Amino acid sequence: MRAKVHVALKKSVLDPQGKTILQALHRLGYEEVKDVRLGKEFYIEIDESDPGKARERLEEMARKLLANTVIEDFVVEVEE
Amino acid sequence: MRAKVHVALKKSVLDPQGKTILQALHRLGYEEVKDVRLGKEFYIEIDESDPGKARERLEEMARKLLANTVIEDFVVEVEE
Repeated sequence: MRAKVHVALKKSVLDPQGKTILQALHRLGYEEVKDVRLGKEFYIEIDESDPGKARERLEEMARKLLANTVIEDFVVEVEE
Repeated sequence: MRAKVHVALKKSVLDPQGKTILQALHRLGYEEVKDVRLGKEFYIEIDESDPGKARERLEEMARKLLANTVIEDFVVEVEE
């Protein structure tokens, strides 16, 4: 079973990388871009046939390893 | 209009970061995880009301700045 875990800084946390990319896009002439925030995406192949169980395990992995929940939010997406 | 640009290493390119995370998950007891690959996700706010035009501009930005198309693939997702 394939799954994705999306991890991004909480909305309340400044994202200097995103800000730098925004400025670079403006310099290239993409003035219509108003905001950029950067996240990570983990593409995971998991040997578990029950989608509910897979989600539960992936949420545990996200809390323990993939995300820093002090400053980041995560979303688990199981491809059924 | 909100959009996402997903950028990930091409399947043919080794992903040592993903491999390291896979090993860490195994050490934590998540033996059911068979593969991990890591990607980036850009959350973009763009001042353009035509979804087709927004997509076109975002694909250009991805080719020019957001992705290294020698080793990375990208997918543009416009939220309509």
